[in-house]
Amino acid sequence: AVSRELRFPWSYLSTLAVTEPSSPAVKTAIPGPKSSTMKRDLNLIQNTDVVHFFVDYDRSMGNYIVDVDGNVLLDLFTQIASIPLGYNHPRIMKVLTDPVNLAAFANRPALGMYPPSEFAQILSETLLSVAPRGINQVQTMACGACSVEHALKGAFMAYRRRERGGSPPTQEEIETSLLNTPPGCPKLSVLSFKNAFHGRTMGALALSHTKWVHKLDFPSPCWPFATFPSLKYPLEEFADENNAEDARCLAEVQDKIASAKRAGQPVACVATEPMQCEGGDRYGSPNFFQGLQDICQENGIALLLDEVQTGAGASGKFWLHEHFYLRDPPNLVTFAKKMLTGGFYYTPDMRPSEAIVEWMDS
Amino acid sequence: AVSRELRFPWSYLSTLAVTEPSSPAVKTAIPGPKSSTMKRDLNLIQNTDVVHFFVDYDRSMGNYIVDVDGNVLLDLFTQIASIPLGYNHPRIMKVLTDPVNLAAFANRPALGMYPPSEFAQILSETLLSVAPRGINQVQTMACGACSVEHALKGAFMAYRRRERGGSPPTQEEIETSLLNTPPGCPKLSVLSFKNAFHGRTMGALALSHTKWVHKLDFPSPCWPFATFPSLKYPLEEFADENNAEDARCLAEVQDKIASAKRAGQPVACVATEPMQCEGGDRYGSPNFFQGLQDICQENGIALLLDEVQTGAGASGKFWLHEHFYLRDPPNLVTFAKKMLTGGFYYTPDMRPSEAIVEWMDS
Repeated sequence: AVSRELRFPWSYLSTLAVTEPSSPAVKTAIPGPKSSTMKRDLNLIQNTDVVHFFVDYDRSMGNYIVDVDGNVLLDLFTQIASIPLGYNHPRIMKVLTDPVNLAAFANRPALGMYPPSEFAQILSETLLSVAPRGINQVQTMACGACSVEHALKGAFMAYRRRERGGSPPTQEEIETSLLNTPPGCPKLSVLSFKNAFHGRTMGALALSHTKWVHKLDFPSPCWPFATFPSLKYPLEEFADENNAEDARCLAEVQDKIASAKRAGQPVACVATEPMQCEGGDRYGSPNFFQGLQDICQENGIALLLDEVQTGAGASGKFWLHEHFYLRDPPNLVTFAKKMLTGGFYYTPDMRPSEAIVEWMDS
Repeated sequence: AVSRELRFPWSYLSTLAVTEPSSPAVKTAIPGPKSSTMKRDLNLIQNTDVVHFFVDYDRSMGNYIVDVDGNVLLDLFTQIASIPLGYNHPRIMKVLTDPVNLAAFANRPALGMYPPSEFAQILSETLLSVAPRGINQVQTMACGACSVEHALKGAFMAYRRRERGGSPPTQEEIETSLLNTPPGCPKLSVLSFKNAFHGRTMGALALSHTKWVHKLDFPSPCWPFATFPSLKYPLEEFADENNAEDARCLAEVQDKIASAKRAGQPVACVATEPMQCEGGDRYGSPNFFQGLQDICQENGIALLLDEVQTGAGASGKFWLHEHFYLRDPPNLVTFAKKMLTGGFYYTPDMRPSEAIVEWMDS
């Protein structure tokens, strides 16, 4: 019965673009007449001020996006850097139509409680096979913002675990956690950087400092942020200036960590993109990131590298931070977008433990 | 070339369960030996304390889940209420293998900027065709927590828009929003309920008050919450007591709204499940929810009904709040899980407008 129900109309595939266009071809104003009509219709349902044009995804291929008016455009945007292999890549299509994956798509496994058989093997052969050097723990998530939010949780739990020195949480901590107040919901903070972007849920948004339209009118925890280095190019020519810039920014990080502690809101985690993307393609030097790791380790603070946009090969190495030759792995590395799943890698000290066990025992 | 690459090995489908088992059948201890081995392997990669058993999703069907040791179990859990039609339902499988959907799966459209052709039609024929009465706006999201987070944003923006009375944001608001401080990131709050669960990202978690293991060690905005009614059954017999309980809880809501305002952290939104689920299947009366809407309207506060777990027919009506006969639609209704996409419905006054336009003009 199932196989009859599921007969795939293969003739459809012949309507898909199967080769890349040879060049861009602009035929109408953009947005064209069809896009404009569709925008008017969609505007009845939701705000469409930021819609650029409507896309014919069936006809888009490789590096080219084709709009509904037939304009063929070389796409440098790739759905906010989310497409790893271009439009309608046959290998991606194959994965999506591979029956081995069908039950996972259809049955929405609650992976923490009822994982599919061979889940460990699947993780090993995919996510762990490209894990940053020295990291062998991974947690999957649905999207980039969720990945950042839950990586922060790992950092907060690790920070408090260290502070408790192996003791279980107190009754006061347990009770106040349900009331949104300290000590159960402690006054901890995360230090991020000016011009950083980490996502749009409340925790991730508190780390983001690019466009006011992302943040205006939303309450936010008042977490600190420091200046990301502005390097001068060519690098060889400005080595001294850039070293001074690195030192200046690292000193600011130390100052902000110290003042957050004095203000009763200690920094549990330093979160940064290894390259600022939304903030304007800003690069930091290996020297800067090595210094950042030193500061984190000296202060018992987790280092979170958010590779949601930079991961999966975008930099020439699989993870951009591999260019930095860090002495130790970063504690947390988030991913999403081109990875085609969200999640984060983490070192064993970031692995949640006692809280979950306590809950299971209760 | 594509059609050759994508040949679907139909013989695979004959290995899928196609009929529901006739009864449960427990053959081993649970977790069984295969599950235990898999748990040990997965534990090398992530904490598996809460893994119950591993599932053979290919062999699960309808109301029955089959574990890797061959145990057949009647499933009352349905992946935390996320499966609308049982395991491996042929109609779901058909949608997943329908080539019309393939380009959307493969090409990860950034829906706000580059929607697919006919997106308005797709939304109309699916999400809007089952929209709560009186609501014609919808925004899609990836998951339940994100849906709640972004519905809250809608409420905050609407609250400040009303406060500004049509004026654009001030330069001070714009500048301070990037610094995580008022007035750009205003001290606003959301009132939720004791025993509520709304998700695990920072904003959604601040609304949640069920298990301490969800909240312990995470900093949280100190937002207020009130008591959800505890009704006595049978309802006919305890009408007076239940009316008194409703009145008591509504009075508490009013008190909390007033005291939040006095404390300089006004309530911009009241968020509640129409039935508490994680908190233990707690029902509120139509009387209670009508009263809640009155209070929200009197105070210029958005009412958010979080139907992530209760929506899509679980209550006998498509949306549980349809049982309440509210005078006006709730301002925001979130969904996910059984809807097989996340998102939220909203009334026109919750529609974001000027901030986006300002950004486009700048």
